Amino acid sequence: MNNNYIQEEHRIFRSTLRKFLEKEAYPHFEQWEKDREIPRHFWKKMGENGFLCPWIDESYGGLNADFVYSVILNEELEKVGQGVSSGICLHNDIVTPYFSTYGSEEQKQRWLPGCITGDLITAVAMTEPGAGSDLAGIRTTAVRDGDHYILNGGKIFITNGLHADLIIVVCKTDPKANPAYKGVSLLVVERDTPGFSRGKKLDKIGMHSGDTAELIFEDAKVPVANLLGEEGKGFYYLMTKLQQERLVVAIQCQTEAEEMLKITMNYVKNRKAFGKSISQFQNTQFKIAEMATEIEIGRTFLDDLIVRHMEGEDITKKVSMAKWWISEMAKRVASECLQLHGGYGYMEEYEIARRYRDIPVASIYAGTTEIMKTIIAKQLDL
Amino acid sequence: MNNNYIQEEHRIFRSTLRKFLEKEAYPHFEQWEKDREIPRHFWKKMGENGFLCPWIDESYGGLNADFVYSVILNEELEKVGQGVSSGICLHNDIVTPYFSTYGSEEQKQRWLPGCITGDLITAVAMTEPGAGSDLAGIRTTAVRDGDHYILNGGKIFITNGLHADLIIVVCKTDPKANPAYKGVSLLVVERDTPGFSRGKKLDKIGMHSGDTAELIFEDAKVPVANLLGEEGKGFYYLMTKLQQERLVVAIQCQTEAEEMLKITMNYVKNRKAFGKSISQFQNTQFKIAEMATEIEIGRTFLDDLIVRHMEGEDITKKVSMAKWWISEMAKRVASECLQLHGGYGYMEEYEIARRYRDIPVASIYAGTTEIMKTIIAKQLDL
Amino acid sequence: MNNNYIQEEHRIFRSTLRKFLEKEAYPHFEQWEKDREIPRHFWKKMGENGFLCPWIDESYGGLNADFVYSVILNEELEKVGQGVSSGICLHNDIVTPYFSTYGSEEQKQRWLPGCITGDLITAVAMTEPGAGSDLAGIRTTAVRDGDHYILNGGKIFITNGLHADLIIVVCKTDPKANPAYKGVSLLVVERDTPGFSRGKKLDKIGMHSGDTAELIFEDAKVPVANLLGEEGKGFYYLMTKLQQERLVVAIQCQTEAEEMLKITMNYVKNRKAFGKSISQFQNTQFKIAEMATEIEIGRTFLDDLIVRHMEGEDITKKVSMAKWWISEMAKRVASECLQLHGGYGYMEEYEIARRYRDIPVASIYAGTTEIMKTIIAKQLDL
Amino acid sequence: MNNNYIQEEHRIFRSTLRKFLEKEAYPHFEQWEKDREIPRHFWKKMGENGFLCPWIDESYGGLNADFVYSVILNEELEKVGQGVSSGICLHNDIVTPYFSTYGSEEQKQRWLPGCITGDLITAVAMTEPGAGSDLAGIRTTAVRDGDHYILNGGKIFITNGLHADLIIVVCKTDPKANPAYKGVSLLVVERDTPGFSRGKKLDKIGMHSGDTAELIFEDAKVPVANLLGEEGKGFYYLMTKLQQERLVVAIQCQTEAEEMLKITMNYVKNRKAFGKSISQFQNTQFKIAEMATEIEIGRTFLDDLIVRHMEGEDITKKVSMAKWWISEMAKRVASECLQLHGGYGYMEEYEIARRYRDIPVASIYAGTTEIMKTIIAKQLDL
Repeated sequence: MNNNYIQEEHRIFRSTLRKFLEKEAYPHFEQWEKDREIPRHFWKKMGENGFLCPWIDESYGGLNADFVYSVILNEELEKVGQGVSSGICLHNDIVTPYFSTYGSEEQKQRWLPGCITGDLITAVAMTEPGAGSDLAGIRTTAVRDGDHYILNGGKIFITNGLHADLIIVVCKTDPKANPAYKGVSLLVVERDTPGFSRGKKLDKIGMHSGDTAELIFEDAKVPVANLLGEEGKGFYYLMTKLQQERLVVAIQCQTEAEEMLKITMNYVKNRKAFGKSISQFQNTQFKIAEMATEIEIGRTFLDDLIVRHMEGEDITKKVSMAKWWISEMAKRVASECLQLHGGYGYMEEYEIARRYRDIPVASIYAGTTEIMKTIIAKQLDL
Repeated sequence: MNNNYIQEEHRIFRSTLRKFLEKEAYPHFEQWEKDREIPRHFWKKMGENGFLCPWIDESYGGLNADFVYSVILNEELEKVGQGVSSGICLHNDIVTPYFSTYGSEEQKQRWLPGCITGDLITAVAMTEPGAGSDLAGIRTTAVRDGDHYILNGGKIFITNGLHADLIIVVCKTDPKANPAYKGVSLLVVERDTPGFSRGKKLDKIGMHSGDTAELIFEDAKVPVANLLGEEGKGFYYLMTKLQQERLVVAIQCQTEAEEMLKITMNYVKNRKAFGKSISQFQNTQFKIAEMATEIEIGRTFLDDLIVRHMEGEDITKKVSMAKWWISEMAKRVASECLQLHGGYGYMEEYEIARRYRDIPVASIYAGTTEIMKTIIAKQLDL
Repeated sequence: MNNNYIQEEHRIFRSTLRKFLEKEAYPHFEQWEKDREIPRHFWKKMGENGFLCPWIDESYGGLNADFVYSVILNEELEKVGQGVSSGICLHNDIVTPYFSTYGSEEQKQRWLPGCITGDLITAVAMTEPGAGSDLAGIRTTAVRDGDHYILNGGKIFITNGLHADLIIVVCKTDPKANPAYKGVSLLVVERDTPGFSRGKKLDKIGMHSGDTAELIFEDAKVPVANLLGEEGKGFYYLMTKLQQERLVVAIQCQTEAEEMLKITMNYVKNRKAFGKSISQFQNTQFKIAEMATEIEIGRTFLDDLIVRHMEGEDITKKVSMAKWWISEMAKRVASECLQLHGGYGYMEEYEIARRYRDIPVASIYAGTTEIMKTIIAKQLDL
Repeated sequence: MNNNYIQEEHRIFRSTLRKFLEKEAYPHFEQWEKDREIPRHFWKKMGENGFLCPWIDESYGGLNADFVYSVILNEELEKVGQGVSSGICLHNDIVTPYFSTYGSEEQKQRWLPGCITGDLITAVAMTEPGAGSDLAGIRTTAVRDGDHYILNGGKIFITNGLHADLIIVVCKTDPKANPAYKGVSLLVVERDTPGFSRGKKLDKIGMHSGDTAELIFEDAKVPVANLLGEEGKGFYYLMTKLQQERLVVAIQCQTEAEEMLKITMNYVKNRKAFGKSISQFQNTQFKIAEMATEIEIGRTFLDDLIVRHMEGEDITKKVSMAKWWISEMAKRVASECLQLHGGYGYMEEYEIARRYRDIPVASIYAGTTEIMKTIIAKQLDL
């Protein structure tokens, strides 16, 4: 791999993180999948070891770490399981950056330290029942009433939805704004907000250890002090953060594909059929050569994007390409790898089974494949 | 659909069956999936209504029904769920035909009536740990010892493995036979056979209501009277029955694909995004047109094979084509349909989620896609 | 093949036709490809032997032959080459049926006999520069002036464009009609019509023996007696004939795919590499098994449609499915077959080379793949 | 593009080259395609301007230019047409490096200057009739006879075969060597060698301006002084040079794909159908977004390999991945782009037509896709 952005310090970090996960995550992961959640104390341990939001400034308790630390956290947590990486990396690299970039000094001091220690788990609530990826069409409203906003509406598919202490809710403070997206604002809803409740945990095909829930706001009273940035700029704020969100998902999918191929190569070398290793059949060799090729070019593309992202380049088009292509590639890899496992691949005892169930949402969340292609077409002036 | 083999009597049968399933299966299916089994009393009810092995001769309690009844049973049970169809249709159309064709009169009288009433559930045990689809390489042995065979070995991935009262075990009565397949025989192992035990229920990605288990034979004493047909002809017997087995799986996969498209068309017509129905996007329309086309040509091919099969034609090549192409097509349909559901498709609440989990084994069992292609190549004299 | 519509008489016809083609077409075909046209005397010989429009009523000199004769003509001419089948079958099964169905008795007597003898070659001119498949948007106009229409406009991609003696020109007699398609009429333009000229022969990737040309109408004087059917009904007439047109193209593509596979199977069995026949490599076997499967299911679907078409069924949806799927399948087959030929496949000396060049237009003419999917989506009420 | 290996000097070179080609190549290219050859005087002009083998050491008349100059030459010549790039870049980057690396000082002085001026055109002859990519199985023999080798055998598909003044012929000097590849040597055959003749120019699907021929050696007398390197090491020499050969083909295919997309984007923006630009249909946008994505990730992968190759890294696995994936991708792009052109895409008047005919050999020469996958599988220890 050409991760020439990885320095000695990063290698040490990866090694430390692996040891931690081998002790604190791998042995418990199967239980978390059964429990359908990551226990709170694991978040706390992550925090104690500096694995939550290490990129945040030291003044708030962070480590000022560069984005490579985030990449490594994403990769190593994905290796444990998509249910783990999705929630924690959402917190680390997708939600908390909103506080850091758009929060006032007061908000940062109030929230960032807890995000680093694991005392505060975060989420971001965009999607609404029936609205899909269409941000301009959201119907959750926040009406100013003195020192509060009165929030009404519902959100679905919210990762960390059950555990979250702080939720950035995308809502309309001006439902009549024209164009519609100019009425969008971001409000941070806290755990005990009156009028805020959580629906039942959603039962998913995969990512069982990740909690996903519905959120309900019925005249929820959110202090004006919890408005993030300015009223009406929410849509713009979201746009600026989508690049990193999609990059993070691409990193997870790439790692997922790499893990699945590794598992499968190991399997076909050891499993025998008709008097030889499955790996000796030309069909097996060609399928694996094809997957290895797509994984290699995916990795090279991704590493290039990571470097560009760190350099502050606008990679909207390229990251949209990576998001859809790598997630779709990971789905193909999952399907081929399961098939190469034969009947064993369908058994939960074999790791490929879980990863096959985990992956299909990756081409849906953080912007579907269809949305990505639409963005690319726009970028190409079509 | 060009099912011009379907007569008035068949239509009536389908209608009766549907009413039965709407009362006895659909309302309970979700529970069966949770329980990871179909309750015994459902089998009995199926038997009482003439839905088990209706093709068996009246002299044993059957209805002498033609194969179209089996087709309809397969289709309607598949619509309930693959976990239901797989076990019951295995019993109906895959296992019990061995008794009927190769059993002695005594064996038929002993077993067939119970198979029809649901008192006797059947299974067939071919696959062994590590042997995959390679029948000539099986290692389970049966050594003659007076009136018994002493059976030793293990079998995996056995559908109906936990519930079965009668299991056709593929074993070697002559391990030194050359070529190896000439040493293969079929022994019927009964529920309480000493030395026979069952492993734990296997945890699968899908088909949760279908039970799948490991079987263990440790000096199991099987009466010589339970030998099916002649010693050393097992491989040949299996070959003659694989045609119907693969046809049955193709019917299930075709029905599965049709159901998934139906569900999804309904979904995209009703779901709105960016101000219109998802079905109004050209991408949605083209994806659905593509799936509808593949489903239509799959159905036409399958219907043609059903007619040929009923006419006793040797359709080895064509049925191998149908098995792999339709099962792979159903997998593609599952993946596209889930994607068209967006985030909802990943939620177990939506039917597509379960069907997506159910389908991937269909290109593995009853002969993998790779085996099918190998057979086709041989049939083409390559 | 399940062509159970093929009777003894048809078999005899095919055999006679083959002998004719082996003498009159195969030995000269390469020259025709070089000359970029089929010589007029070949048309005449076809006519003399009853191979032009055999379906036309005996009262006009035809044979009253059923559609199976057309199928056989399509298949056998396609085996010679797509450049031959496209022009002759267009004449036989696509253009002349307009005369037969919508022509007046006088027109039929004037034109049909010559179409049968080969004295009159026909074409139909729909597509205009820049208008593609959009019939409602055509800009060729015909203005009534006494006993004549004054025709102005241009047409492109007209098969038989250079040789045609009679050309059905799709034009607007009422350019202001609303909806636009209600202004469309069909005028038959004869060879020596004043104001009618032909552009240069178009140089195509393939189908070299087929002539394709541009047609120009500059105040062309077309007798009112040459109006086909009624004014303003042209669009409707076209719609009723598209079913057979698309079916004919599907038959050609299916035959093309079958021929390419046959050629390639022969090649891989005889060609050696690394000490064995190419056909013994698992990759070759699987690729061929895959193609053979798709070809088999395509054939079954097509045969079913042929029967339904002969029975007068409306198969708009199914024939649209067949048109796009079989033409795209034939393109895939061409690409795989060329690859299996290695370097030889790129050499014109090898038949696969020509067929690879011929095929890509098949998913474009007679309605593009995109148009077919649009029609299917409409038929599915999306 | 992230060609961050491209410096100011390279940009100037590209600009100079472009101007040269716009004057000396583009206006004549269509004629060269018709003539089925690039005229000798164009080679000379290329040489005069320093565009032949600029990487060769100044002591032989070269420019000591780095590999980026070769990349640029490949790209710009490919933009003119594959028939041009294939022959000239073969000379520049594939054949002459053998002289430079394995030639004696005497040979270098004898040959390199003429290769730089264009007085000597080169070729390499590996493939034999019936042997395909199997180098160990070649049957051309060279028997030592005093100061000469007596060379017998035949070679096919030899690029520059008709024009070449110097041909590196892969032959067996020791046909009994075990393993066989240890008997392979490289002999340089000159234009007027007695016993050496050329077969007819081969008629290809595409690359018409590139000459491809058969070579015949009947007791051809080749001076011992024309042996390249040592006897029996030919196979090893070939292996060391395949990396650059495959990289060069990957660069050409990548450029080809980029050109085809550019042409097609231009087309769909300008062409109208059903009242809007083709580019406004969602299907068009998605197809183009998909192609643009694959082209972008292909480019990133390739640029990374170029840098690694220049640094002397062993990229056998990666370059095999690039060779097959990029050539197959370019074929897909060709097919999609032709389809998006509608009927125009089939007309030679439109550039896409020629590029569609040119590309299919790219996944065959310099090692087929199948060979590439075999190499990758070996590199993965399967």
